Amino acid sequence: MTEKKRLYIQEVATRDGFQNEKQFVDTDAKISLIDELSECGYAKIEVTSFTSPKAIPALRDAEAVMHGIVRKEGIVYTVLVPNVRGAERALSCGVDEVNLVMSVSESHNRTNLRMSREQSFAQLRDVVNVVKSTPVAINVSLSTSMGCPMEGDIPAGHVLDWMQRFADLGAHGVTLCDTTGMAYPAQVGELCRLARERFPALELTLHFHNTRGMALANTLAALDAGVDRFDSSLGGLGGCPYAPGATGNVCTEELVHMLELNGYDTHVDLQRALSASTRLPALIGHDVPSQLLKAGRRLDLHPMPPADAVPEQRAFANEGS
Amino acid sequence: MTEKKRLYIQEVATRDGFQNEKQFVDTDAKISLIDELSECGYAKIEVTSFTSPKAIPALRDAEAVMHGIVRKEGIVYTVLVPNVRGAERALSCGVDEVNLVMSVSESHNRTNLRMSREQSFAQLRDVVNVVKSTPVAINVSLSTSMGCPMEGDIPAGHVLDWMQRFADLGAHGVTLCDTTGMAYPAQVGELCRLARERFPALELTLHFHNTRGMALANTLAALDAGVDRFDSSLGGLGGCPYAPGATGNVCTEELVHMLELNGYDTHVDLQRALSASTRLPALIGHDVPSQLLKAGRRLDLHPMPPADAVPEQRAFANEGS
Repeated sequence: MTEKKRLYIQEVATRDGFQNEKQFVDTDAKISLIDELSECGYAKIEVTSFTSPKAIPALRDAEAVMHGIVRKEGIVYTVLVPNVRGAERALSCGVDEVNLVMSVSESHNRTNLRMSREQSFAQLRDVVNVVKSTPVAINVSLSTSMGCPMEGDIPAGHVLDWMQRFADLGAHGVTLCDTTGMAYPAQVGELCRLARERFPALELTLHFHNTRGMALANTLAALDAGVDRFDSSLGGLGGCPYAPGATGNVCTEELVHMLELNGYDTHVDLQRALSASTRLPALIGHDVPSQLLKAGRRLDLHPMPPADAVPEQRAFANEGS
Repeated sequence: MTEKKRLYIQEVATRDGFQNEKQFVDTDAKISLIDELSECGYAKIEVTSFTSPKAIPALRDAEAVMHGIVRKEGIVYTVLVPNVRGAERALSCGVDEVNLVMSVSESHNRTNLRMSREQSFAQLRDVVNVVKSTPVAINVSLSTSMGCPMEGDIPAGHVLDWMQRFADLGAHGVTLCDTTGMAYPAQVGELCRLARERFPALELTLHFHNTRGMALANTLAALDAGVDRFDSSLGGLGGCPYAPGATGNVCTEELVHMLELNGYDTHVDLQRALSASTRLPALIGHDVPSQLLKAGRRLDLHPMPPADAVPEQRAFANEGS
């Protein structure tokens, strides 16, 4: 018996998911969901974002949520922080980690964050300087690391250069984000190998979107390159604002389902995560992209339909292959 | 420069897709679509099914479709055939290949085909005996090869035994079908390696469903095991009758998009396939599962939104990662 390889699953639905939702999710409902997520076995939960309430009204209750949740030993509770003001708010709530975000492509950074990359970097450097003297960990999420919807391909060398700049500042971890689902497996494998080789001490996370159906295939490629840490979003929550109807973040339950079947130890209780996922549509007012929620786990078996059932009632009778 | 590995893509939308549709697709529309598919670069097109018009009314025009299409040199035009009567009809239309279907699990065979596996095998043996004396090729699609929704796991040895029985009869090819999307990558890799090792002379096709999001990940596993031939369905057409709303067959455009990005030569003109896929909703009266149709190819770039656009209009401005 070989021991199963441990993987680290990081839930982003209550931040990266909720921030895109038009319907405000009640603070108590957020707290109750996060408390349920804390029982699911995640390594990390991205609780909320300490951005301006005007910029992201969906997460205007960041303090109340951070103070309201029951924090469980062993889970890293992280929050997105855009600037020093946000960092101070986050630190006052006793977060375990701050997550800083900027894009590696100039166009996307200007569009998403309304400033140049150098302006973003300067702002995030100030954040690092505030947080560095505390025990709070610092992660940097690099958007558009596998392609920019306006500029196209981003050379791996550029991505590594941005990693270097944040490693030099003292960041503990970096997340390579496939912000609009442009990553493909061969590219992911190469970028991950280069990143792990050059930054063996950085905690490396991969953040995939399923926009073009490749999120789980990209996960396999990252695993092959030795990556052991993945962001995912319950229910697949988290829109892709430029493509209405398109899927966003890779779905936690589909990711965990595949990884566990493939023999990895994710520590995530899939049944419990699925049960939490069923709560989402009521909270956000619409269906979620999760296929697994519709189809069930692969061994959630079905009874045989009665022999005399008419074709429409015989659930599997489609003469299909 | 190493030469790109050639892969063979087999389109099943007009058979495995249309047979599940409630709305009858006009015969002329079917012919026009198949003629367009013939220009896309597929290795094989599953045109229709010579089943009883009562069993599958959606494909009651099988003869008219086969006679109506313009057949292009180099493409194998195959049809599903359930019995000797169907085989005689198919042969009279000059098909290139007949595709026979049965399940490797008893429950699914009884539910889908209303007979035991041995009854199915006897019936298909009669078909083989009719077709064998002609130049028409014989493929056998083995449903539930990677799991049965009623029985659960199917041992790989049982699947190989069924392959053996059809190889002994003289079948040219076998398709291993993940009928209800229960396959996972580690399982696919192992089954494909065993199948290729034991039956090096059989043309092996993998037929994945994306029911639980793993179709493209499973494709990577099959590729690693040396498989070079895949079924797929334009637009992701082809329901999963037991899970309403769940995705069915792996989507041709998403499969080809990933394979080409990963450096394979599929011979499929992706732009043309996408254009054909846009015709589907009008034909069947509803949206198709294809994510790529919504999101576009990864390098279909977008202009930067105007600098003064309000957040709701700034397509990428979600402060997301």
